[in-house]
Amino acid sequence: TSLQKRPGKYYLYFLQNHFYLSVCICVCRASSPQEDSAMENIVTEKKAEESHRQDSADLLIFILLLTLTILTIWLFKHRRFRFLHETGLAMIYGLLVGVVLRYGIHVPRDISNATLGCPVNASPATLLINVSGKFYEYTLKGEINANEVDNVQDNEMLRKVTFDPEVFFNILLPPIIFHAGYSLKRRHFFRNMGSILAYAFLGTVISCFVIGLLMYGCVMLMKQVGQLGGDFFFTDCLFFGAIVSATDPVTVLAIFNELQVDVDLYALLFGESVLNDAVALVLSSSIVAYQPQGDNSHTFEGTAMLKSFGIFLGVFSGSFALGVATGIVTALISFFTKLRDFQLLETALFFLMSWSTFLLAEACGFTGVVAVLFCGITQAHYTFNNLSPDSQDRTKQLFELLNFLAENFIFSYMGLTLFTFQNHVFNPMFIVGAFVAVFLGRAANIYPLSFLLNLGRRNKIRSNFQHMMMFAGLRGAMTFALSIRDTATYARQMMFSTTLLVVFFTVWICGGGTTQMLSCQRIRVGVDSDQDNSKTSNSTFSVFAQMSITEGPERRSTKQESAWLFRIWYNFDHNYLKPILTHSGPPLTATLPPCCGPLARFLTSPQAYENECQLKDDDSDLILTDGDINLTYGDITVSTDASGAHTSGGAAFAGAATSDDLDRELTYGDHELVMRGTRLVLPMDDSEPPFTDLHHGMRM
Amino acid sequence: TSLQKRPGKYYLYFLQNHFYLSVCICVCRASSPQEDSAMENIVTEKKAEESHRQDSADLLIFILLLTLTILTIWLFKHRRFRFLHETGLAMIYGLLVGVVLRYGIHVPRDISNATLGCPVNASPATLLINVSGKFYEYTLKGEINANEVDNVQDNEMLRKVTFDPEVFFNILLPPIIFHAGYSLKRRHFFRNMGSILAYAFLGTVISCFVIGLLMYGCVMLMKQVGQLGGDFFFTDCLFFGAIVSATDPVTVLAIFNELQVDVDLYALLFGESVLNDAVALVLSSSIVAYQPQGDNSHTFEGTAMLKSFGIFLGVFSGSFALGVATGIVTALISFFTKLRDFQLLETALFFLMSWSTFLLAEACGFTGVVAVLFCGITQAHYTFNNLSPDSQDRTKQLFELLNFLAENFIFSYMGLTLFTFQNHVFNPMFIVGAFVAVFLGRAANIYPLSFLLNLGRRNKIRSNFQHMMMFAGLRGAMTFALSIRDTATYARQMMFSTTLLVVFFTVWICGGGTTQMLSCQRIRVGVDSDQDNSKTSNSTFSVFAQMSITEGPERRSTKQESAWLFRIWYNFDHNYLKPILTHSGPPLTATLPPCCGPLARFLTSPQAYENECQLKDDDSDLILTDGDINLTYGDITVSTDASGAHTSGGAAFAGAATSDDLDRELTYGDHELVMRGTRLVLPMDDSEPPFTDLHHGMRM
Repeated sequence: TSLQKRPGKYYLYFLQNHFYLSVCICVCRASSPQEDSAMENIVTEKKAEESHRQDSADLLIFILLLTLTILTIWLFKHRRFRFLHETGLAMIYGLLVGVVLRYGIHVPRDISNATLGCPVNASPATLLINVSGKFYEYTLKGEINANEVDNVQDNEMLRKVTFDPEVFFNILLPPIIFHAGYSLKRRHFFRNMGSILAYAFLGTVISCFVIGLLMYGCVMLMKQVGQLGGDFFFTDCLFFGAIVSATDPVTVLAIFNELQVDVDLYALLFGESVLNDAVALVLSSSIVAYQPQGDNSHTFEGTAMLKSFGIFLGVFSGSFALGVATGIVTALISFFTKLRDFQLLETALFFLMSWSTFLLAEACGFTGVVAVLFCGITQAHYTFNNLSPDSQDRTKQLFELLNFLAENFIFSYMGLTLFTFQNHVFNPMFIVGAFVAVFLGRAANIYPLSFLLNLGRRNKIRSNFQHMMMFAGLRGAMTFALSIRDTATYARQMMFSTTLLVVFFTVWICGGGTTQMLSCQRIRVGVDSDQDNSKTSNSTFSVFAQMSITEGPERRSTKQESAWLFRIWYNFDHNYLKPILTHSGPPLTATLPPCCGPLARFLTSPQAYENECQLKDDDSDLILTDGDINLTYGDITVSTDASGAHTSGGAAFAGAATSDDLDRELTYGDHELVMRGTRLVLPMDDSEPPFTDLHHGMRM
Repeated sequence: TSLQKRPGKYYLYFLQNHFYLSVCICVCRASSPQEDSAMENIVTEKKAEESHRQDSADLLIFILLLTLTILTIWLFKHRRFRFLHETGLAMIYGLLVGVVLRYGIHVPRDISNATLGCPVNASPATLLINVSGKFYEYTLKGEINANEVDNVQDNEMLRKVTFDPEVFFNILLPPIIFHAGYSLKRRHFFRNMGSILAYAFLGTVISCFVIGLLMYGCVMLMKQVGQLGGDFFFTDCLFFGAIVSATDPVTVLAIFNELQVDVDLYALLFGESVLNDAVALVLSSSIVAYQPQGDNSHTFEGTAMLKSFGIFLGVFSGSFALGVATGIVTALISFFTKLRDFQLLETALFFLMSWSTFLLAEACGFTGVVAVLFCGITQAHYTFNNLSPDSQDRTKQLFELLNFLAENFIFSYMGLTLFTFQNHVFNPMFIVGAFVAVFLGRAANIYPLSFLLNLGRRNKIRSNFQHMMMFAGLRGAMTFALSIRDTATYARQMMFSTTLLVVFFTVWICGGGTTQMLSCQRIRVGVDSDQDNSKTSNSTFSVFAQMSITEGPERRSTKQESAWLFRIWYNFDHNYLKPILTHSGPPLTATLPPCCGPLARFLTSPQAYENECQLKDDDSDLILTDGDINLTYGDITVSTDASGAHTSGGAAFAGAATSDDLDRELTYGDHELVMRGTRLVLPMDDSEPPFTDLHHGMRM
């Protein structure tokens, strides 16, 4: 399923067997064979120590780069300078250091090469060498470009600051992706779920194929003109399409957050970019796995295509299931133990379980990054409610920090890589083609899909939103990590160089122009998230809502997006999963049919009963319809200055199932007891006011 | 200076040159040379993927071990079961998994070895191999025991779960040591500083030499009896002495914390163990660096001895200076920027600067772990005051978590290693000798030094404290990391195996018996830290104090420990360093002579002036004498229920320069304005009441 795991450098090892092996050994000049062993010990030790020092110094460069970035970011934030985001800045500093490393520093060449030859049949991953009865183990580090072998020692430093690409996948990407899942604003995410899924799945596939086809055209043209220096197959084009389809609007969203842009636009962009990272990753691995039988290895073949599709489905669903499963296990552990009395243990457990999701997925052959994304969403949805308030803060802050460091590290590294990477292939025609293709691919994703989605949405995605989404399609960490993972062939090297430029351009130009674009597209900024909810509130209860409130000037009657399937799931989640997995939600005894009484009593925690008198459902900002009711009423009955104690029928009703920040500010009348512990059934029909009993209970 | 950085495996590389190199290559059986390249690609990829999966699975084992440990710890804490600490538990789980890996799992042997020979002159760290024009780079992984070469594939799994020892020094130890420095209770540490330094420096050296000499006797005896299977020099014995002299009373201190044992005992043990890790580390590296000239490489030589001593001093002071320097740089950065408005940036900067201390020290050839320790202390002393309250929590929690994970990982790994390590040499005679030597070495550290220290201390270290310190000399993470760092020779292997047993024994027996030992030695438990301060209060102001208060029954008149040198430093720190580096402390304009007015105004932050009206010196629990006065007065005038607002002369006076938790609960009368902003000069003489002006100011 994941044949692509470590492609690249390992591709060509066994290509030709029984060749002559020339072992070219680098020996310190200082150590002539005549010297005694004690001296040689010292020399070797010194060399090993030197190498360790060098490693430390290399890492130090990055740490100082990050430090510098942080200080400059602070300055920018302090001066409210929004044209350059921290990631763009990190890239610039990386570029500068790259230039210095490349052109400024010349390491003296103190090592001589001795070349010896003996016949060997391949270059395996592990080599055992026997020197006078002592066995030494060598591991394969990677291939060295034939042109570079002569000055391999000169480039030692440059190669050293070039990390193993797997570092990105195994160390830097997981915290970024987990944080994205963990910090997903679930209410807005689920409200726009249909559209987000459409953009993320369909849109990414469309974008991938559009870009792939355009690039194939471009490559054909280059071949005609004679500008192509190596093989470039259609699968390579598709692969390129997949990797540049992963958007990463971290810059844009940071600005959105600061300017408080429309929450629906925010949700659409954030949800899309979080999910399409996963889609692009799995898609690219499926494309790599597309290997028709026999010699004609780059032609179209139905079975191979089907197999690739199967791999896509298998890896995606497997990773999804694994991520959700470990999330649920964590929720269960934190539910059944009283770990919340010991915050350190709780936080450590949370961290370890989330990390083990990644490792487990990798060990099973799924994609760890995708698993970690869904694990993050599950943890936020269930486990988060079981954590002590202290641990809730701790875990949020921990992953925020890890995300910040990993992200800025990747972007610094990107800048550095432009100069320190040894095998760049910059082809002007390919680069121009790529920019055009990326633009058209994004357009083919956003506009047609928005048109189709608008047919079904009441809350239309307006054209200025569409333009903004088009503009916000930055490429970032995932695109970079995917492209650097494999730089063995000519095609991949050209892709990597081009991808770097695409990332630079989009982050600097599109990222820097976000504020201008927002004002140009006349998108409302400074929208209070809670106020805005009411604006975009739809809802199931629109009839009901309109019965009792005057419609605000900006209110649009939007069709409820969440389909009946989603509502079924929501009912199930709220009535059964939440009570079983978390301390929040109604007690099971209230939601299960009476015949399951004993089981329900067994599974319900004492806290759940306490919840009957105390509002604890921190998590229900997921909930679409309730949240909307709440805020529908919030519009008329609750002032949003969020300071005082308001008692109103509408707010109290909302309290039955939701508690976002606003609600927690409210005090509840005793009439709320009417609804507490009742079984919540969301209406399956839009036209009728559902909770008539509750309505009466509200004394409106 | 740090020739010892990577000794061990690299020792013997150049011993004999121009030997026959037999390259023995492991090739997958599946790939016969006749198969086509595409298939071989797949095979190689699969192999690489398999290896990645295996890595993930190995790491997963440790994560699950940690998870299991956390859950069991929770159970123990929940049931208040104190006989087994989390570290002991982690070791037990590690042992169990080690047994399973060793005896339970047999990996099928699917790889065949092909041995080829060609002449080569050494085994360097980097190998370039040329297969048909493609160059591959191999790096030296390590030596493989000659006996193990035949079944090297069988042991693949066991070798894989055996980490590179440098992981301990570069990844796991730094957070542990930093956290120790950052969480040092500075008031109690500085109050007992003289004794702590004596135990840590003198004591460790004594212990090292006593153990070294005893072990040398033991080794001589073994040679006579014929039980010694290889070389074992006097320097090896000394090295052993150094590594087992590093105490790690994490178990004991955890129990002390829980039971609230006497703070002075706590401070002595904690301070000693924190510092002696650093001393033992530098000491062991100096011993390794002891290399007399010429052939007689294991005899005594004056110059080499002096050189070793010079290395010790150089490395220690260099690491100290570096650690303090980066700490001060961080303090300055956080002082001059308004980074505290952005907590994420602040926390990230703090983390990065602390990490860069380690890297910088390693890159300069000093000892990163030692540098990190002093960086931690400096950060806690200066930078901590400049952080926003949110960041103070964040950084504390972050390092607490990292420390917890790293520590439990090391202890799990220790248990695992007993079974999975390939080159154990268990020699009963050596082991018995080592246990006796460790016991006597600890005794030779504690009892004579305590006797000498008691001559100078008014607050004597009582004999039950001495017994407790003797008993609490557990060996832990540092001892393990030092011993596993180098397991190349017979002597080092024997040391490693023996060290493991010493750690197991001390952690389980001494750690588990702490509660019993405490009650057996009749050491007071349940002592409130603040109340206890008054008990042990001495002080400079003893005459002054006795003027106005009745002595409590338990009060002992103790000689002030801190020497005049320390008091000079304290005055300097309080009057100049604190105001320059932090937002707390008096404004410089008040402490500097009037002639420096403009400079003082430039360097003083506006916040410092605010401090004149508002108590902000969070950090002054460092202060000996003031703290003592405070609590001396606290005894009579302030009830310690810490809830109400007491106004009293004594407490107000204390407020002038100290603010521990108790003080913050107190309100201050307006008379405190009399002392605010004044220049604090600690008395250099014990006999006279100093602050007579303040005394009047207090209206007593």
